[in-house]
Amino acid sequence: MSTSFVTWRERFERLRSNKLFELTVIGIIVVSALLIGAKTYEDEVGPFQQWLLMLDVAITVFFLVEILIRMAAEPRLRDFFRRGWNVFDFLIVTASLIPMDDSEMVLLARLLRIFRVLRLVSMIPELRMLIAALFKSIPRMGYVALLMFIIFYIYGAIGSFLFSDVDEFLWGNISISMLTLFRIATFEDWTDVMYATQEVYAWSWIYYLTFIFLTAFIFLNMMIGIVLDVMQKENLAIELESGEGEAAELHGLRDDVRSLRGQLDRIEASLASREGPSGVDKSRQG
Amino acid sequence: MSTSFVTWRERFERLRSNKLFELTVIGIIVVSALLIGAKTYEDEVGPFQQWLLMLDVAITVFFLVEILIRMAAEPRLRDFFRRGWNVFDFLIVTASLIPMDDSEMVLLARLLRIFRVLRLVSMIPELRMLIAALFKSIPRMGYVALLMFIIFYIYGAIGSFLFSDVDEFLWGNISISMLTLFRIATFEDWTDVMYATQEVYAWSWIYYLTFIFLTAFIFLNMMIGIVLDVMQKENLAIELESGEGEAAELHGLRDDVRSLRGQLDRIEASLASREGPSGVDKSRQG
Amino acid sequence: MSTSFVTWRERFERLRSNKLFELTVIGIIVVSALLIGAKTYEDEVGPFQQWLLMLDVAITVFFLVEILIRMAAEPRLRDFFRRGWNVFDFLIVTASLIPMDDSEMVLLARLLRIFRVLRLVSMIPELRMLIAALFKSIPRMGYVALLMFIIFYIYGAIGSFLFSDVDEFLWGNISISMLTLFRIATFEDWTDVMYATQEVYAWSWIYYLTFIFLTAFIFLNMMIGIVLDVMQKENLAIELESGEGEAAELHGLRDDVRSLRGQLDRIEASLASREGPSGVDKSRQG
Amino acid sequence: MSTSFVTWRERFERLRSNKLFELTVIGIIVVSALLIGAKTYEDEVGPFQQWLLMLDVAITVFFLVEILIRMAAEPRLRDFFRRGWNVFDFLIVTASLIPMDDSEMVLLARLLRIFRVLRLVSMIPELRMLIAALFKSIPRMGYVALLMFIIFYIYGAIGSFLFSDVDEFLWGNISISMLTLFRIATFEDWTDVMYATQEVYAWSWIYYLTFIFLTAFIFLNMMIGIVLDVMQKENLAIELESGEGEAAELHGLRDDVRSLRGQLDRIEASLASREGPSGVDKSRQG
Repeated sequence: MSTSFVTWRERFERLRSNKLFELTVIGIIVVSALLIGAKTYEDEVGPFQQWLLMLDVAITVFFLVEILIRMAAEPRLRDFFRRGWNVFDFLIVTASLIPMDDSEMVLLARLLRIFRVLRLVSMIPELRMLIAALFKSIPRMGYVALLMFIIFYIYGAIGSFLFSDVDEFLWGNISISMLTLFRIATFEDWTDVMYATQEVYAWSWIYYLTFIFLTAFIFLNMMIGIVLDVMQKENLAIELESGEGEAAELHGLRDDVRSLRGQLDRIEASLASREGPSGVDKSRQG
Repeated sequence: MSTSFVTWRERFERLRSNKLFELTVIGIIVVSALLIGAKTYEDEVGPFQQWLLMLDVAITVFFLVEILIRMAAEPRLRDFFRRGWNVFDFLIVTASLIPMDDSEMVLLARLLRIFRVLRLVSMIPELRMLIAALFKSIPRMGYVALLMFIIFYIYGAIGSFLFSDVDEFLWGNISISMLTLFRIATFEDWTDVMYATQEVYAWSWIYYLTFIFLTAFIFLNMMIGIVLDVMQKENLAIELESGEGEAAELHGLRDDVRSLRGQLDRIEASLASREGPSGVDKSRQG
Repeated sequence: MSTSFVTWRERFERLRSNKLFELTVIGIIVVSALLIGAKTYEDEVGPFQQWLLMLDVAITVFFLVEILIRMAAEPRLRDFFRRGWNVFDFLIVTASLIPMDDSEMVLLARLLRIFRVLRLVSMIPELRMLIAALFKSIPRMGYVALLMFIIFYIYGAIGSFLFSDVDEFLWGNISISMLTLFRIATFEDWTDVMYATQEVYAWSWIYYLTFIFLTAFIFLNMMIGIVLDVMQKENLAIELESGEGEAAELHGLRDDVRSLRGQLDRIEASLASREGPSGVDKSRQG
Repeated sequence: MSTSFVTWRERFERLRSNKLFELTVIGIIVVSALLIGAKTYEDEVGPFQQWLLMLDVAITVFFLVEILIRMAAEPRLRDFFRRGWNVFDFLIVTASLIPMDDSEMVLLARLLRIFRVLRLVSMIPELRMLIAALFKSIPRMGYVALLMFIIFYIYGAIGSFLFSDVDEFLWGNISISMLTLFRIATFEDWTDVMYATQEVYAWSWIYYLTFIFLTAFIFLNMMIGIVLDVMQKENLAIELESGEGEAAELHGLRDDVRSLRGQLDRIEASLASREGPSGVDKSRQG
C-alpha cells in the first residue's frame, strides 16, 4: 500500500510539472476571468444564467482538484504550505467554495471569485518575479511614507480646524480633510477647494501652496533616492565583478615581480660567494 | 533586352539614392499633409474644392510612381518587401488609391490619406531610428502591462458588481468600469466619481485609494526598472570597452615581466655553469 | 551638593538614553496626535470635552518634564541648544504652553499643539536623516527656483495687463495672476481659463502653450540635472573607493619594480668591479 | 585726445567690473520689476501715477546709461555685439525706449518693459549658465518633438474629420483639434471630451486611449533617452579622467619594466664577454 501511495505521489508530481497541465490551468483561469466579466453584463446574460452557474461550479471543482493534486504531489503536506504562493492559491480556492446560489452571500461569493484572476500571477513565473520585486521595494519606501503621513496628518488637522465651517463636506473632520488633501495632492480640482476657503480666509492659498510644494518635494526626493539607491547597488555589483578580474591580474603580476626578486637575490648571492666579502661590501656601498 | 533592364534598374537605383529626389519626396509628403489639414477648414476651402481634388490626384500618382521606382531599383522584387519600412510605405500608398469622389467611401479614403503623413517617418532616418528604439522597449514592458491589465480587470469587476446600481453610466459593465478606472488613474475628476459612490458605500474611498496607490506604485517601479535595465546595459558596454584597454595593458605588462624571468633564468644558468654544482647549491640554500 | 548634582545629571542622562523612555515619549506623541485628531470630530467628543482637556494638560506637562530632563542631562545648558533638533523640540514644547481654555487664543493654541506631531520626526533617527537629506537638496534647487519665479513674474505681469478686463477674479493683479499661472502649471482646469480669454484674444493660446512648455521644460531639466548631480557624486565616491584599492596595488607594484632595479644596479656594479673599466664601457655601448 | 579716450575706456571698464556697480544694476532691475508689478494694482496706485511715471523714466535712463558705459568699455564696438547676452540686453533696453504716455502704444510699451526683468538672467552668471544648459538640451529633443508633432497632426486630422459635427468648438478644424489633443495629453477634463463623442461614435474611446498611450509612451522614452544620453557622457568623462590616471601609472610601470630589461641585457652581455661564445650558447639552450 505504501508503494502504491508513492506511485500515486509520483504520478501527481509528474502531472503537476507537466507543461500541458500548466497551460490547462492558465486556460481555466482565463475562462473563469471571462465568466466573471460576462456576469457584469447582466441584461445580456439573462437567458444563459443557468449555464453560467454550471460553468462556475465546474471551474470551482477543477480548481479544487488541481490544488489537491498539487498537495498530493508533495512528500509532506506542510511542504506545500511552506511556499507563500501555495498558501495564496489555497486561500483563493477555498474562499471561492462559498456557494453562489445562496441569496445572502451572493455578493461576497462573487467578490471572492474575482480574486481567482490573481491566480494568473501565481501561475506565470515572470509575474511572480515582478511581484517579488515590488514587495522588495516596499521597505525602502517605509519611512518616506511615514513622513508623508505625518505631513498629511498635520495639514489635515489644521485644515479641519480652520476650514470645517467653510465646507463641512470637505473639511468636516481629520479623516475627511486627509482625503481632501490627497485630492489636492493629485491636483484634482484643487483650485475649487482653494477658491472656496479663500473667500473666508484670503490667505489660505499659503496653506495649499506649501502643502503642494512639500508633498511634491518629498515625493521627488523619494523617487530620486530610490533610483540612486537601486543604481548604486547595481553599480557596486558591476564594479566588484569587473574589478575582481583586474585585481586578480594585478595580484598575479605582483607575485611574478616578487619571484623575480627571489631570483635576483640568488644571483647576487652567487656572485658574492665567488668574490669574497670585500667585493660585496663595495657593491653595497655603490 | 536584359542589358537595358539592368541599365534601367541602375538608373532607378541612382535616382532612389539621389539626395534631391529624397528631398522632393519629403516635400511632397509635407504638401500632402498640408492638403489634409486644409480640407478640415471646410468653409474656407469651398471655392478651391476642384483644385484640391486635382492636387490630391497628383500626389497620389507621384507616390505611386515613387514606390514603383523604388521597387524597380531592387534586383528582385521580394528584396523590396523584406524591409519592414518598404512594406509600410507600400500599404500606405496602395491604401490611398481608393478614389476620393466616391460618396460612400469618402470618409475612409480621407482617413487613409491621413496616414500618408506617416511616410515622413519612413523617409527620415533619425525618425526611423527613434521608432525602432521605441519598438525595442515594448517587450520590456510586456509583463508589467499584463500585471496592470489584471489589476484593472479585478478592480473593474469589483467596481461593476458594487457600483453599477449607483451610476450605470460609469460602472455599467466591466468594460465601462475599466474605462472609468483608466480615468481615475489619470486623476481626471476622480473625486466626482468617488463622492457619488461614497453616498451609498461610505467606505468606497478604500477602493479608489488602493487602486490609485497600486497603479502608481507599479508604474513607478516599472519606470525605475526600465531606466535601470537600459542603464545597466550601457554601463556594461562602457566598462567592457574601457576595461579592455586596461586589460590589454596589464596583459602586456605581465608578458614583459615573464620575459624578464626568462632572461634571469639564462643569467643564473650561465653563472651556475661557470661555478660548478656546489656553488649553485649554496646560493639556492641562501 | 556638587556631587549630588552630577549624580542627578547622570541619572537624567541614563534616563534620556533609556530605550523604554524613548518609546514612552514616542507613545505620548502618538497619543497627543490622536487627541488632536479626535478634537476635529466635535459632535462626537462633546461629552468627553472635560476628559480631553485634562489629557491635554497631562501631555503638555509630560513634554515639559521630558524636555527639562533632557536639558538637565547636558553638562551645560548651551550644549542643549547647540543641536538644531533640540531647539526645534524646545520651541514646539514652549509654544504649546499657551492655555487651551482661554477663549481668544484657543485657535492659535490648537494650531500650535498640532505641531507637536512633528516631534515624531525629531525622535525617530531615520526621519531625522530623511529631513537632513531633504534640506541638503534645497540649495541645489535655488537658482532653478529663481528662474522659475522670474518666468512666473513675467507671465504674471503680461497676463495681468492683457486679461484683467476679461476675468478680474483670475487676472486682477500680478499676485492673483501668478496663482492662476500656478494653477495652469498643475494643469488644473487650465482650458477653462484659456477658453475664456480666447473669446477676447483669439491668439491667447500662444501665451498658455509657451508657458506650459517653458515650465515643463525647465522642471524636467532641473529634475534630470539633480539626478545627474547626485549620481555623479555617488559615482565619484565609488570610483575613488574602488580606485584607491587599485591605485595602492599599482603603487606597490611600482615600488617592487624599482627595488628590482636597485638590486640589478648592485649586481651590475659588482660585475663591473671585477672586470675593470673597459668591460663596463663595452657593455654600456652594447 | 586719444590718451584721454583710452583713459575714459579704462575708467568705464573698471566701473563695469566693479562689484558695487553690478549690485546697483541688479537692484535697479528688481525695482523696475516691482514697478511693473505695482502697475497691475491699478486702483491702489492711482494717486501715485505721476510718481510711477517719473520712476519709470529714471529707470529707462539708468539702463540706457549703463549699456552705453558697457559699450564704451569695449575696445571696439563690435566686440560688444559679439556676446549674445549683450545683444539681448541691448534689444531689451532699446525696446523700452518707446514712451509710456503715448496712448496708442501704451500696451506695447508696458509689455516691452516687462522683459526688463529678464535682464536679471543676463546679470547673474548662475542663471546665464542655467539658460545655456537649457539651450544645449534643445537639439537633443528635436526629432522627438517632430515625431510628437506628426502624431498630433495625424490624430488632429482624424479628430477633425470624425468629430467636427459632434462639437465644432473642440474639433472644428485641424488647429483647434490639435489644441484639444494637447488638452487631452495634459489629462485636462479629457473624459468630458470623450463622453461627448462616444454618444455619436461609441467606439471613439479607442481614439483617445491610443492617443494617450502613444504620447505617454513616446514622452517616457524620450525622457529616459535624454537621461541616459546625458549620463553616458558624464560617465565617459569620469571614466576617461579616472582612467587616464591609471593608464599613466600603468604606462610608467611598463617603462620601468622595459628599463629593467635593458639592464639585464647589459648584465648578460657583460657575463657573456667574460666567458666566451661557448658559455653563452650553452645558457641560451638551457
